[in-house]
Amino acid sequence: MSKIPVTILGATGAVGQRFVQMLAEHPYFEIVSLSGSDRTAGRSYGEACRWVLPGSPPEVVRHMTVSPTTTDLPGQVAFSALPAGIARELEPQFASEGYAVCSNASALRQTTGVPLLIPEINFDHLAMIPAQKSVLGWKGLAVTSPNCTTNGIAMTLKPLDDAFGVETLFCSTMQAISGAGYPGLPSLDINDNVLPYIQNEEEKIQSETNLLLGRMVDGERIPAQITVSAHANRVPVVDGHTITMSIKFKNKPDVADVIHVLENFRGPLEVEKMPTAPAQPIIVRHEPDRPQPRRDRDAGDGMSVSVGRIRPCPIFDIRLVTVVHNTVRGAAGGSVLNAELLYANGLLA
Amino acid sequence: MSKIPVTILGATGAVGQRFVQMLAEHPYFEIVSLSGSDRTAGRSYGEACRWVLPGSPPEVVRHMTVSPTTTDLPGQVAFSALPAGIARELEPQFASEGYAVCSNASALRQTTGVPLLIPEINFDHLAMIPAQKSVLGWKGLAVTSPNCTTNGIAMTLKPLDDAFGVETLFCSTMQAISGAGYPGLPSLDINDNVLPYIQNEEEKIQSETNLLLGRMVDGERIPAQITVSAHANRVPVVDGHTITMSIKFKNKPDVADVIHVLENFRGPLEVEKMPTAPAQPIIVRHEPDRPQPRRDRDAGDGMSVSVGRIRPCPIFDIRLVTVVHNTVRGAAGGSVLNAELLYANGLLA
Amino acid sequence: MSKIPVTILGATGAVGQRFVQMLAEHPYFEIVSLSGSDRTAGRSYGEACRWVLPGSPPEVVRHMTVSPTTTDLPGQVAFSALPAGIARELEPQFASEGYAVCSNASALRQTTGVPLLIPEINFDHLAMIPAQKSVLGWKGLAVTSPNCTTNGIAMTLKPLDDAFGVETLFCSTMQAISGAGYPGLPSLDINDNVLPYIQNEEEKIQSETNLLLGRMVDGERIPAQITVSAHANRVPVVDGHTITMSIKFKNKPDVADVIHVLENFRGPLEVEKMPTAPAQPIIVRHEPDRPQPRRDRDAGDGMSVSVGRIRPCPIFDIRLVTVVHNTVRGAAGGSVLNAELLYANGLLA
Amino acid sequence: MSKIPVTILGATGAVGQRFVQMLAEHPYFEIVSLSGSDRTAGRSYGEACRWVLPGSPPEVVRHMTVSPTTTDLPGQVAFSALPAGIARELEPQFASEGYAVCSNASALRQTTGVPLLIPEINFDHLAMIPAQKSVLGWKGLAVTSPNCTTNGIAMTLKPLDDAFGVETLFCSTMQAISGAGYPGLPSLDINDNVLPYIQNEEEKIQSETNLLLGRMVDGERIPAQITVSAHANRVPVVDGHTITMSIKFKNKPDVADVIHVLENFRGPLEVEKMPTAPAQPIIVRHEPDRPQPRRDRDAGDGMSVSVGRIRPCPIFDIRLVTVVHNTVRGAAGGSVLNAELLYANGLLA
Repeated sequence: MSKIPVTILGATGAVGQRFVQMLAEHPYFEIVSLSGSDRTAGRSYGEACRWVLPGSPPEVVRHMTVSPTTTDLPGQVAFSALPAGIARELEPQFASEGYAVCSNASALRQTTGVPLLIPEINFDHLAMIPAQKSVLGWKGLAVTSPNCTTNGIAMTLKPLDDAFGVETLFCSTMQAISGAGYPGLPSLDINDNVLPYIQNEEEKIQSETNLLLGRMVDGERIPAQITVSAHANRVPVVDGHTITMSIKFKNKPDVADVIHVLENFRGPLEVEKMPTAPAQPIIVRHEPDRPQPRRDRDAGDGMSVSVGRIRPCPIFDIRLVTVVHNTVRGAAGGSVLNAELLYANGLLA
Repeated sequence: MSKIPVTILGATGAVGQRFVQMLAEHPYFEIVSLSGSDRTAGRSYGEACRWVLPGSPPEVVRHMTVSPTTTDLPGQVAFSALPAGIARELEPQFASEGYAVCSNASALRQTTGVPLLIPEINFDHLAMIPAQKSVLGWKGLAVTSPNCTTNGIAMTLKPLDDAFGVETLFCSTMQAISGAGYPGLPSLDINDNVLPYIQNEEEKIQSETNLLLGRMVDGERIPAQITVSAHANRVPVVDGHTITMSIKFKNKPDVADVIHVLENFRGPLEVEKMPTAPAQPIIVRHEPDRPQPRRDRDAGDGMSVSVGRIRPCPIFDIRLVTVVHNTVRGAAGGSVLNAELLYANGLLA
Repeated sequence: MSKIPVTILGATGAVGQRFVQMLAEHPYFEIVSLSGSDRTAGRSYGEACRWVLPGSPPEVVRHMTVSPTTTDLPGQVAFSALPAGIARELEPQFASEGYAVCSNASALRQTTGVPLLIPEINFDHLAMIPAQKSVLGWKGLAVTSPNCTTNGIAMTLKPLDDAFGVETLFCSTMQAISGAGYPGLPSLDINDNVLPYIQNEEEKIQSETNLLLGRMVDGERIPAQITVSAHANRVPVVDGHTITMSIKFKNKPDVADVIHVLENFRGPLEVEKMPTAPAQPIIVRHEPDRPQPRRDRDAGDGMSVSVGRIRPCPIFDIRLVTVVHNTVRGAAGGSVLNAELLYANGLLA
Repeated sequence: MSKIPVTILGATGAVGQRFVQMLAEHPYFEIVSLSGSDRTAGRSYGEACRWVLPGSPPEVVRHMTVSPTTTDLPGQVAFSALPAGIARELEPQFASEGYAVCSNASALRQTTGVPLLIPEINFDHLAMIPAQKSVLGWKGLAVTSPNCTTNGIAMTLKPLDDAFGVETLFCSTMQAISGAGYPGLPSLDINDNVLPYIQNEEEKIQSETNLLLGRMVDGERIPAQITVSAHANRVPVVDGHTITMSIKFKNKPDVADVIHVLENFRGPLEVEKMPTAPAQPIIVRHEPDRPQPRRDRDAGDGMSVSVGRIRPCPIFDIRLVTVVHNTVRGAAGGSVLNAELLYANGLLA
């Protein structure tokens, strides 16, 4: 079987590099082009890119020339790590021209007809694609992966929502600096410090959670109606977002119920078999002080979400803590998984 | 006027050092003795103490000999930075023997008859002292200052409770490492990491907040009835606790009301004049990303609490962020202020 | 006495902010104007400036309008925190137009006729000023303060050079992130990391050390001839540069000699009396593990250099460690001290 | 082939955990027992051990009972992560009783007859073993791996010494906190700070470098005669020691010579084939700002040493920077490699 040719849009940025890293030796996909900004286009990837991950850019892309971000780029799938503003303009063009756009940007997440996906929890939202083609008139298609933090939240909530009905969520986040991209956060702002503000983050958490937990009715996505209050904070941690949550349910579970449901959660078999899917999407930690970002972010190669400190809440029903790797599961890894889902469903034919 | 002789119990620890720092040149008090553990007793303070604050121990105590913690220590006031277990045993002995114990330990905070004080907000709880003497049969007396985090919470809530009636509080904390004392937290646990657990901290926040906001009725303290849910976390910040809060009120205020009340809050004139009291107990920050621990912990020489990001909450009424210096206002400084309050009320006569 | 009106060039940057902080209540100088970039000019300082120091911009400048950097700015002294490129173009213009330029930029440090000053150690280099006026044809004058790291090195070496003759210096630095300005170093580059490279830093250390330790002969500065090898590194510390040094002397001292010379070093009386001068320019630490940046950077309000671990070197004669506050003594504070020296010598008449 | 049974002494500490991690699925060795302190002995490893590495203890040891450190422990090889004092007493007993002791402790490193080994550079020191048995009268044997920092230094110097003759080394280190073990360094000491002192570290670097680069003459190890001056510092980095070096050679090479020699260095074929040996023991980085601990510590799964910034030195001949993973190559990984060397040489028969 020959691999499907793919391009990475915005390949030199922090999330773009994660795409490169995760796709360099992918069993289904082959990187055939890379796009960058005007500053980087025309240079080799190895030179144009300030590699911010450990080690070096993979050999296979090091000598590839960075292209401008235009719709004549070789590739059938376009993984997008474009900045929000540029994504808003270019992603529809790529979809229109026939690419299967797998985006990590926020641009299309709220667009009618574009599914916001975490394969383990709402693979059925793929059913939006046929309508997408007809309504938006695209030759190709587009799917999006959610905001890094919302990834961890929705993954934790979905099995609980199915079992007990989630009504209300209070959450407060402690997010890693890699979430701000590169150069991103000045060290003078975050060393020995906390920043209690991340632009638009609370709004994203509040709206995307409801899209992700939405139900498909007659090919249409009906968002969930969970009331969410989010406090978003940045802390001096390199990778891994930590989220404290208090949850109110329709059918109040006890702590053992919650542990049982989370520990037994698996995605559909089709998803479980995908190459980037972790053996276990949710890992429950039983130590009193876990999960922790440094010790749990790499669980399942960064694709598992770790949940712990499951205990009663004096106000709502249950309190707990979730850690999610923000640039793997919460960014590039999520979009790669989405592409694998498209592939498994014959949508990359 | 000659100064009042004081002793510091547990003077070589992290909070003990703050006591030393804040009392070394105090206008009312003079350090006449210092106590330490068996390991440090008998040595000079300069040698026995691994000074963890910037600079060096003040000259005035450097050559003072560290004593064992016994009730024959010279001094009329005993500032206690003892570990919880030891405090539980020894603080009542000191009070019984006639010392005015101003404790930062948690040991007596829940003891009937012992006021838990933040002078700006519940100076009237001093009225518990006469009953304390009679009920507990002490020659001296004891007052306590609250847990470091609760300090910031209660200071923020009190004026709002007076104005609008606080019903429910959800809070999630990001606490500095100095709150764990010395040697305290191993660096391997907290560097590039978050610890989502601090032993007993959530319980303290939940109960002490209600004690602090309690009302005096006929010389008796009636605790408030606020339902509190706390998530306590440790982050890699040296000093300064950050607390995100969502608050539900009896009489729902809008954001402008909350800002107005907080900005205009002052302690009683008697407290305002005390040497360690800040000009403004609460400082409201209007920037979108303040308060921050590194930039706001030293406001009012570490005695002011900074509040910002005051905005509506989708679940309750108001969301906001508070920063408090955990070892100044939240520990030694709070107890020094308590001692000044005793002094101002003639209770050190 | 009315104060001398001064302007701060590049006032909104990280070093510019330190100038503002140190000059806001200065006994000799009064800030009458502030300059910024095109982006900030025309706005009030409070709005234009992202204040990166603790607290808030001083009241006295908050409502001052930021001006473009042009030579019609009010003020007699121009404190320069301009970026190197701009400084190279504009500082000579300011000196030419009659300002006394006290620069922290590197632009003029190597210019013939422009003294590079640390008042305590080479105040006599002021004697270059008369020739400067005649040779460069300026109505005003310019003096410079050295690179942040070199400040600590030269302060440490000067008394030792006078006593024993310094021949060779090997040094390796661990520099704080604030030395890179704002936004400066991306947090993704320095958190949980060391950067073993700072552009041009090693060259500056090697050349400026010899200028600072140069001797005046017939009104001319003869640079010292110390062979210097520097390794410059960035570490995750907010403020305070740490420098390890191995020194070879003409007349080999023992450890006690070195301690004695350093502890007894004082600047000339005229300098000691200047308002920003610390009581002791060099503080010798005797603990085995001091100086440390967090605990020693604020010695003498950031104007003292701390030296410790003085011990024999297996290769050269003496090893030691120096800590200097890079944005106070090593930047704005150094230039303010230079201005005070000009003042004391009647050069601001 | 059945695996060789091994025990890990001091298995619950930070280095002990690395041993567990690296040996849990080793192709030659099988963990059959684990020893711990009095506090941990008798409990299951999973409970007794506060796991400080990412993730969880491997399944294969989680339920193994921790034993006291006595010479009746099952196992043929004894990997030692014992504290120095205890190692000094017990390691000779284990060797005497017939175990092949592969120690990471410093206890026996200086003992006559005990080789200090880095397989790639001085595998020939194994020739000391026959004499060891006869002189020390042991039934078993003992080999040691060097101090973490010295590992990186010796690996870098050895090929250069062979090619050009190393005469003098100046080095200054920036060492990670994991090097101090667990609980090790209090976070209050190292956050936002540098500690310019590590007990005994400079002495170890200075002496062990000469042992490692010693030559075997008639079965006896003649230490090298390099004059070394070391400055040892601790910085807030989790893993990975960074070392700046200035080197003087007998036959002065230029920069290109040094790069060529380092890039072409390989251990002997026998070593290259060992399971824990990296493909390349030394990786030369050509970027101006590499190596960096966070980005290079995991090179070769933590077993490669990264070298960069190779440039002339104004005092000696060459300056460069080395990064070594202190708990993998510099600790447990080094000892595992030593055991593999013993195995390959039939010394575990």
